[in-house]
Amino acid sequence: MTRAIMHGCNGHMGRVITGICDNDKDIEIVAGVDPFDDGHNTYPVFSSIKDCNIEADVIIDFAAAKAIDALLDYVEEKKVPVVVCTTGLSDEQIARIKDVSTRVAVLKSANMSLGINTIFKLLKEAAKVFAPEGFDIEIVEKHHNKKIDAPSGTALALADSMKEVLDDDYFYRYDRSQLREKRNPKEIGISAVRGGTIVGEHEVFFAGEDEVIEIKHTAYSKAVFAKGAVSAAKFLNGKGAGLYDMGDVIA
Amino acid sequence: MTRAIMHGCNGHMGRVITGICDNDKDIEIVAGVDPFDDGHNTYPVFSSIKDCNIEADVIIDFAAAKAIDALLDYVEEKKVPVVVCTTGLSDEQIARIKDVSTRVAVLKSANMSLGINTIFKLLKEAAKVFAPEGFDIEIVEKHHNKKIDAPSGTALALADSMKEVLDDDYFYRYDRSQLREKRNPKEIGISAVRGGTIVGEHEVFFAGEDEVIEIKHTAYSKAVFAKGAVSAAKFLNGKGAGLYDMGDVIA
Amino acid sequence: MTRAIMHGCNGHMGRVITGICDNDKDIEIVAGVDPFDDGHNTYPVFSSIKDCNIEADVIIDFAAAKAIDALLDYVEEKKVPVVVCTTGLSDEQIARIKDVSTRVAVLKSANMSLGINTIFKLLKEAAKVFAPEGFDIEIVEKHHNKKIDAPSGTALALADSMKEVLDDDYFYRYDRSQLREKRNPKEIGISAVRGGTIVGEHEVFFAGEDEVIEIKHTAYSKAVFAKGAVSAAKFLNGKGAGLYDMGDVIA
Amino acid sequence: MTRAIMHGCNGHMGRVITGICDNDKDIEIVAGVDPFDDGHNTYPVFSSIKDCNIEADVIIDFAAAKAIDALLDYVEEKKVPVVVCTTGLSDEQIARIKDVSTRVAVLKSANMSLGINTIFKLLKEAAKVFAPEGFDIEIVEKHHNKKIDAPSGTALALADSMKEVLDDDYFYRYDRSQLREKRNPKEIGISAVRGGTIVGEHEVFFAGEDEVIEIKHTAYSKAVFAKGAVSAAKFLNGKGAGLYDMGDVIA
Repeated sequence: MTRAIMHGCNGHMGRVITGICDNDKDIEIVAGVDPFDDGHNTYPVFSSIKDCNIEADVIIDFAAAKAIDALLDYVEEKKVPVVVCTTGLSDEQIARIKDVSTRVAVLKSANMSLGINTIFKLLKEAAKVFAPEGFDIEIVEKHHNKKIDAPSGTALALADSMKEVLDDDYFYRYDRSQLREKRNPKEIGISAVRGGTIVGEHEVFFAGEDEVIEIKHTAYSKAVFAKGAVSAAKFLNGKGAGLYDMGDVIA
Repeated sequence: MTRAIMHGCNGHMGRVITGICDNDKDIEIVAGVDPFDDGHNTYPVFSSIKDCNIEADVIIDFAAAKAIDALLDYVEEKKVPVVVCTTGLSDEQIARIKDVSTRVAVLKSANMSLGINTIFKLLKEAAKVFAPEGFDIEIVEKHHNKKIDAPSGTALALADSMKEVLDDDYFYRYDRSQLREKRNPKEIGISAVRGGTIVGEHEVFFAGEDEVIEIKHTAYSKAVFAKGAVSAAKFLNGKGAGLYDMGDVIA
Repeated sequence: MTRAIMHGCNGHMGRVITGICDNDKDIEIVAGVDPFDDGHNTYPVFSSIKDCNIEADVIIDFAAAKAIDALLDYVEEKKVPVVVCTTGLSDEQIARIKDVSTRVAVLKSANMSLGINTIFKLLKEAAKVFAPEGFDIEIVEKHHNKKIDAPSGTALALADSMKEVLDDDYFYRYDRSQLREKRNPKEIGISAVRGGTIVGEHEVFFAGEDEVIEIKHTAYSKAVFAKGAVSAAKFLNGKGAGLYDMGDVIA
Repeated sequence: MTRAIMHGCNGHMGRVITGICDNDKDIEIVAGVDPFDDGHNTYPVFSSIKDCNIEADVIIDFAAAKAIDALLDYVEEKKVPVVVCTTGLSDEQIARIKDVSTRVAVLKSANMSLGINTIFKLLKEAAKVFAPEGFDIEIVEKHHNKKIDAPSGTALALADSMKEVLDDDYFYRYDRSQLREKRNPKEIGISAVRGGTIVGEHEVFFAGEDEVIEIKHTAYSKAVFAKGAVSAAKFLNGKGAGLYDMGDVIA
């Protein structure tokens, strides 16, 4: 049984994770941290991690980026492993996470979904076979109409994971409307579709002579990221110092 | 029974159309025109349309753009309806086609496939319902890695057909990677995927709150354009002067 | 402005509809009916419709089937139009709805989503063009692993809507594993995929010689049915006696 | 450079393979075998393999099943490795192939496409991760309307490859229309869609809580099987006795 502290327990993701843990006998949230507390939580809630006096095996962090420094202080002092899901961290904060991970177990991933992280592995396998045979690689991602960045961080992470096993001269192409030329075999096209409330879809195509292979991930709600965080927390319980990612969880 | 002259009979599309007509008892190719003649055709072949002395009900044109002027001279003189499938025509040539069509039946279309032309109609119906309800419209097209233009002419024609029933302020977006802002409700995103030997795929998405409607066309070979040309030829047999398109054939 | 009574206001769909109306200035819920009342509603809640003394333009019904008789009594007495979204009605109850609709406006549909109901129209258009050209028609539907019926009622309604414009000899095929024969041109294949928490996907294929046209609907949450119910309520405000369906709302 | 004998050189696949080898400097067809000979081949053609007196490194077999016995006699006598692509073999013929492979290299696969065989590997990886997490597995395959068997041999081979890494109690479900019950977590649904001239599409879905992973293969022409056969022939050149399959070629 894993005892977890939920850092950011009353945000949207904190509540979803709480709900998942309520239905999972292998993990229990023993304390929460959140500046906002409406008294509805079934576990004690502290306004800052530094006030938390409850022993735990792991911390799940889905709080704001500005709370990360106090969190890392606590992690270092108490030697409690932490799953960092917060996004929008500064380069300094990321550097400190790496440093802390030399002394305590830290897990951090571009995308917390089990499905996406398995796809990272499948794509490397596929790229190793198809690229040398002359297949072209293309990515199409779809998200809701409120998303401001394009392509998505996950699409870029998918492309990056394939680049690890490809020649150095592969590059990314985001727009072909200004060109009048044949496709460069070394380009990976990345197209961003935006519309409605689409949570997140990522399709990777390997297009060869008269055949196409497609690997696709569809997220129907943000619960998939919450579930991944819970799996990561169980995995991290008892682990030694090191920087882990979701790839380790599914290995 | 429709008697047809195949203009450009020994090019790739001319041969495919010949094969289709061989298996269709409602149409017969009674003569061909092509500067190249290897003696394998089952009908007489003339090196130029002006030498053709065989009576026909309709001409199917899949020859080079430079042959269009001699063809239009013949059409005018003999008053034979013509299906113009040749692409890459100059503005002058297109203007002359329009002029000729005031005296003889002429059919010309952005895409000769029955499927695509039916989709033009379906998209107008769909756009009329979904756009006022706040659905976002996106197009993804996929073609082989030798295609030099992007987006495809058919993707633009699909977007144009929807614009006819939408507010004037809709516009096309080909690239989002340089922006950091929410999607404009009046934009129609058009993404171009290139890879392998893909003949042609066009997907149109209407993305609303928690639902997405997708209309997709996949061409598996260029035979679909040949078949459309044959249907158009039968349709044009006996028609009076006018400029027709594939929309009239499927009406 | 439409004043609505929400019949079944504290069930899942009743709450979703309440949320939608809170954000729509053209409709207001002026009263709710539900045996369960936790005092959280912003409008008066009655345990039975017969106790409701608040004037309204329309009733939206998402309550249990057993409550339909008291509802229809009220509709008849007060002459208030009603949108019936409740499912699982008996033949007698459906017969009574038809009878009541000769005196008051009633709207009832197999599927309340705007998208699906637009697809009904598009499919008729498509089937009229493609079936005579020899295209084969196939449907694939996908739902969550708790659904007990297959194929879905919506898949059957989609097929039925096409049958209205096809020859009488078309029939449905649910399983090909026991046959060893070529596809019958008059069959409409209907396949049911079940897995995970998929809310509902319906794909209709028209497969011809070297081209395939696909029309697909994906529902990401049950909110799409709630939104359709609200649109139907606004439509029904002020309508005369008659039996309406969602096809009338989008006409 | 690999010297190959093309067994069944004037059938459809034999001609496609000949065309591929004409454009590949690493393999040459040095002789063909076919009862039908129109004098158009660029290499000597024998009416039976037993008359062939030309030395080769490997044989590619796409002939009729009845010719397999004479072929295996030749393989044994000359000790020439063979790629067996012929389908519809009897149990006795398959047993003899296995026996011969203890003395000469033989390659035989359910599907010769590079893409499909890579997917076999990816599916095993995916099934190992997703099945223990409670994801449901479903397969949808699509083929032309002339295909008489369903589901396709390739769909069954895809399912079988996953079963190798799953619990013994997984089973296949071809039809749900006669049931009224929730999906069994141990079933793998396999749906067969038939229409038009679709060459072959195979989709495998892993459907979990709020996420779906899809792995899809589309063949646009039979050339993909020919290309796989050529890759297999090059691979087999110089290999010792053993029964190989396409999985070894892409390892």
